[in-house]
Amino acid sequence: MTHIARDRAAIILAAGKGTRMKSDLPKVMHALGGRPMIDWSIDLARNVGCSKIVVIAHPSQTVLIDHVTALLGEGAIAFQDPPQGTGHAVRCAEDALKGFVGDLVVLYGDSPLVPPSAIEDLYAALETGASLGVLGFEAAEPGLYGRLILAADGDLDAIVEAREASPEQLAVRLCNSGVMAGRAETMFRLLGKVTNQNAKGEYYLTDLVGLARAEGAICKAVQCGEDDLIGCDSKADLAEAEAIFQSHRRLEAMNAGVTLVAPETVFFSHDTILEADVVVEPNVVFGPGVHVRSGARIRAFSHLEGADVASGCEIGPYARLRPGTVLQPNVRIGNFVETKNTQMGEGAKANHLAYLGDGTIGANVNIGAGTIFCNYDGFMKYGTTIGEGAFIGSNSALVAPVEIGKGAIVGSGSVITKDVEADALAVARGPLITRAGWAISFRTRKGAEKAASKKD
Amino acid sequence: MTHIARDRAAIILAAGKGTRMKSDLPKVMHALGGRPMIDWSIDLARNVGCSKIVVIAHPSQTVLIDHVTALLGEGAIAFQDPPQGTGHAVRCAEDALKGFVGDLVVLYGDSPLVPPSAIEDLYAALETGASLGVLGFEAAEPGLYGRLILAADGDLDAIVEAREASPEQLAVRLCNSGVMAGRAETMFRLLGKVTNQNAKGEYYLTDLVGLARAEGAICKAVQCGEDDLIGCDSKADLAEAEAIFQSHRRLEAMNAGVTLVAPETVFFSHDTILEADVVVEPNVVFGPGVHVRSGARIRAFSHLEGADVASGCEIGPYARLRPGTVLQPNVRIGNFVETKNTQMGEGAKANHLAYLGDGTIGANVNIGAGTIFCNYDGFMKYGTTIGEGAFIGSNSALVAPVEIGKGAIVGSGSVITKDVEADALAVARGPLITRAGWAISFRTRKGAEKAASKKD
Amino acid sequence: MTHIARDRAAIILAAGKGTRMKSDLPKVMHALGGRPMIDWSIDLARNVGCSKIVVIAHPSQTVLIDHVTALLGEGAIAFQDPPQGTGHAVRCAEDALKGFVGDLVVLYGDSPLVPPSAIEDLYAALETGASLGVLGFEAAEPGLYGRLILAADGDLDAIVEAREASPEQLAVRLCNSGVMAGRAETMFRLLGKVTNQNAKGEYYLTDLVGLARAEGAICKAVQCGEDDLIGCDSKADLAEAEAIFQSHRRLEAMNAGVTLVAPETVFFSHDTILEADVVVEPNVVFGPGVHVRSGARIRAFSHLEGADVASGCEIGPYARLRPGTVLQPNVRIGNFVETKNTQMGEGAKANHLAYLGDGTIGANVNIGAGTIFCNYDGFMKYGTTIGEGAFIGSNSALVAPVEIGKGAIVGSGSVITKDVEADALAVARGPLITRAGWAISFRTRKGAEKAASKKD
Repeated sequence: MTHIARDRAAIILAAGKGTRMKSDLPKVMHALGGRPMIDWSIDLARNVGCSKIVVIAHPSQTVLIDHVTALLGEGAIAFQDPPQGTGHAVRCAEDALKGFVGDLVVLYGDSPLVPPSAIEDLYAALETGASLGVLGFEAAEPGLYGRLILAADGDLDAIVEAREASPEQLAVRLCNSGVMAGRAETMFRLLGKVTNQNAKGEYYLTDLVGLARAEGAICKAVQCGEDDLIGCDSKADLAEAEAIFQSHRRLEAMNAGVTLVAPETVFFSHDTILEADVVVEPNVVFGPGVHVRSGARIRAFSHLEGADVASGCEIGPYARLRPGTVLQPNVRIGNFVETKNTQMGEGAKANHLAYLGDGTIGANVNIGAGTIFCNYDGFMKYGTTIGEGAFIGSNSALVAPVEIGKGAIVGSGSVITKDVEADALAVARGPLITRAGWAISFRTRKGAEKAASKKD
Repeated sequence: MTHIARDRAAIILAAGKGTRMKSDLPKVMHALGGRPMIDWSIDLARNVGCSKIVVIAHPSQTVLIDHVTALLGEGAIAFQDPPQGTGHAVRCAEDALKGFVGDLVVLYGDSPLVPPSAIEDLYAALETGASLGVLGFEAAEPGLYGRLILAADGDLDAIVEAREASPEQLAVRLCNSGVMAGRAETMFRLLGKVTNQNAKGEYYLTDLVGLARAEGAICKAVQCGEDDLIGCDSKADLAEAEAIFQSHRRLEAMNAGVTLVAPETVFFSHDTILEADVVVEPNVVFGPGVHVRSGARIRAFSHLEGADVASGCEIGPYARLRPGTVLQPNVRIGNFVETKNTQMGEGAKANHLAYLGDGTIGANVNIGAGTIFCNYDGFMKYGTTIGEGAFIGSNSALVAPVEIGKGAIVGSGSVITKDVEADALAVARGPLITRAGWAISFRTRKGAEKAASKKD
Repeated sequence: MTHIARDRAAIILAAGKGTRMKSDLPKVMHALGGRPMIDWSIDLARNVGCSKIVVIAHPSQTVLIDHVTALLGEGAIAFQDPPQGTGHAVRCAEDALKGFVGDLVVLYGDSPLVPPSAIEDLYAALETGASLGVLGFEAAEPGLYGRLILAADGDLDAIVEAREASPEQLAVRLCNSGVMAGRAETMFRLLGKVTNQNAKGEYYLTDLVGLARAEGAICKAVQCGEDDLIGCDSKADLAEAEAIFQSHRRLEAMNAGVTLVAPETVFFSHDTILEADVVVEPNVVFGPGVHVRSGARIRAFSHLEGADVASGCEIGPYARLRPGTVLQPNVRIGNFVETKNTQMGEGAKANHLAYLGDGTIGANVNIGAGTIFCNYDGFMKYGTTIGEGAFIGSNSALVAPVEIGKGAIVGSGSVITKDVEADALAVARGPLITRAGWAISFRTRKGAEKAASKKD
């Protein structure tokens, strides 16, 4: 982060109803990259060094209010009720920012992809003398966006609504994103002059530029990519933003040396860490909290959340790693295996059809196909511990809390309800009974029953 | 549906060999959106109110003939043998439509995406005085398509084959889809005048326009999108049509308030119903007959067919719901779990690795990992019933027919072959035998064997 | 293959460091279509009839050297150390090709998609009198590519580097791929004249054209598609090449009569064979060595490697077939089932949750849900044999080596450790013990414990 000349604060607008989302959830609580959109805006403010962050919400948005309060503490919410425009929204934060002196940036809770560099560019404009900075973008189809009209010297001269623009102004492709920064005291003072004498009867934040220019103040426009400024008003917008995010993350990963066989089929979360020389096969989903270290291979159809995967591990296909999974080097998790809150030592293997919940598994342990850690009794969860080099036979159930000693062997099909000593054999199995020829009479009887049932 | 002024009938052309499909299956029996193409055309005819539907088939297409007869009854098939063009195909339906008075529309069994609105537009043209209506489209690359030539007053003046068109006519981008509607009596009368004096020696339906114009009758062209008119002659065409269908359905779902994290990875069937505020993660396949209610979440890599999923349910990842699955609110089906013909009461859970076939499961039942409902004895299927609040320990096998009472507990690893009373404990398990130090001698012996085997 | 007039040899350049790959693996060892890029170039050379193939490597690339030596034998590697340009690289092969008389082609280890037809076109140019042939492509964005400048008679006059090109030459879109063929003796003789008097101080192969023209020799340019010539310097390039490869293979499969419901979600390996009338649902991965025969259906989310699937089989969803799987007609492998080195007879079924490793399964055998073949004792693998028509009850473990006779029945939940005779019943199961009302006291006790634990 660059040197911060003045204190910084952010106001995040999030009170909009978001009716086009057609959802009971507040708009900015819908997720992108595995976390709510509002978290992206809050993170952006934090990343550019804002010491104070105020989220503008509507009092009815209890899910949002609780979420933001949990993240930022009491006092981080200001209410806007009823909404009367973006300028009004920013004024709603005035009390919460009482006493704040420094630079203020206005962000939007439904624009999750704005990069920190764009906000730093706004701050740089302020530090070189501008009273206001506005973030703009070259629109592929400018349409109804407000146009940023620059003076001959490159300063921002005006923001003109498309409906009020001259043909020359309509030809301008640099459009207003709504993101704006300025000295807090200047912005609040000018907001006091903004009126709602317009078609919608709303107070517009964009009016600040005209008011500042009328005072002879300098305004500047800075620019970032249109994709980065996508606003998410509907589920289709959200899917488009998700696609942009995924596309960026895939390219970043490949540029960092990750092999993605089919990048378009790999899904990242906001915090996914894949190191160089990780190989990811087609159709892999990374939920939040995943770190895969250099040289590990994630095979097709795998799903990872909250997992730390060491070098040399081979995961999947069809492996599901859930939160709390920590795998030491060269662990092998195969098909139809689920791990949860489980640590596995170097070289341990669970290759087929298993549920490993709340386990502590030593190095070089072999977990047979069909093994279940019975960690839940309907009331509480309990742990299973397996010592180094133990061998758990197929279709075994280990009833937790239970400990299998180092080097012990559990026979196939056993239900283990007591601890097993190191190097011991444990088998719990019914006696094998065979009845010669029984299958013939069974088939005769059942064949007749089936025939009879069809006649009915 | 709008008021239907006259009776309506449809002829669906489906006798084509479809050699480019390179398949033993008749072309129109290949599926789109999870059902045969011919069903889409039949549904279209039904949706626009056709009381009589005749499918033109070749006598060799027994799979098609049986399928259509099962759907529409005897008499819905007319044979074309050998095929002599589209005009000939329509004439083959004349007997089947004997006595029908009203409006006739000619559809194609390999054009599954034609929207009902396009056919309603044709009927509207007929009701405002046209003798014939032809469905056209603006082609991105008109190429060899027949051109719809309009008169100055906007009426359809002629259909001109590309090979016979003047440069001015070739510049026309409005092309002929082949879909045509008219008074049945007029169409059959004019078809009697169509000749096969052309390069291919075929009778063309398009010739009707020229014949009608020669009589001074009015013809009209109506229009729909090129994508909607895609014809499927090859597997590549079929994949393209499927992509168009899926793309439409994904957008419709998002516009209705469904969250699709990665829409391009979610596959719908023709009849999939997802309510608002359903969340669908990446890589989900909906087979036919699925209804997911508001607030349910379908996690990644899930596969649903014939399933009714209530509000608050969480399904997957890697859940497979098969036909006859009915889930009450807040049911949880986790990874590597298969349900078939099974009802689950509110709050019931099967979180890991299970097969639940032919089950009736009460509210708040907990099904442990590795549980199998043994519903098949090689001859017939039997049911498993589990009372409210029962707890089925991991790796259990419930041998149907069997009933587990309310609140009962089944111990891990048990094979249950008899009914269990309410609130009882049932355990079927071999005694646990341990042999101290046995693993050491086993390893010594096996290590030697392995070494020996390598020397061989 | 066409008649080969002269002996053919290939030199494959592969000594590049590939730093942009950010990988410890040599660049050309990264995989495309499931095999290393270098294998594609070697196969290309073999396909056009090269009797001698020399790969130019750097001595530090031990993985590459071992791989090529295993494929082509000793003497197939020539070292380039340090790298001094493409001309230098080719000269490094001179010793290895001592005594070779005939046509030589220079290929690149990081260009895996060059089609044999392009190389045949080069040979054809040589056979019609050219001393050198160069493979070019029409570049969408020629940029910094060297331009192939043709004389009025269509012969290749010069290769001009973009930085040294005149505006007229820069307007040429035919660019140099670097692939070149010529008489071995001519190429090596002219290479002796190439100098490194240029900005990079390297010996360029492209200089051969100018030297040949200076002697009055004829050079020719032949052409193939830009996509076919993609070079893979980075993980992003590799992903792009993989996408091109997959796209070609999907279209080829559909044109051959394979139904791909969602082609963009199906991944082929270099050697995948799918016959006509195979249906592949969305999200299927074919690893190397798969042959699926006409009329089989591969359902969604399946993963196949080294498997031979006969007509009428239905595989998946969520089936994993591993190497050595051979399925006779009408076999059914259902969800969450893994097979490895296992043969299944006609009509055999394993519909749910099973691991079938090292098995020999007879016709019409039914494998119940949750069945495990316990093929591994921690040291060696053993086989399981099941006779025709046997029925394996659910959740059974068959401890190999073991044989289940024809028509035998294994009861659910059994661990089978001894052979079972034909038509016998075998059950190994603990006695069922029930305790009435036990669950009530358990819940009381556990509920209290849980409440107490929360107070802590």
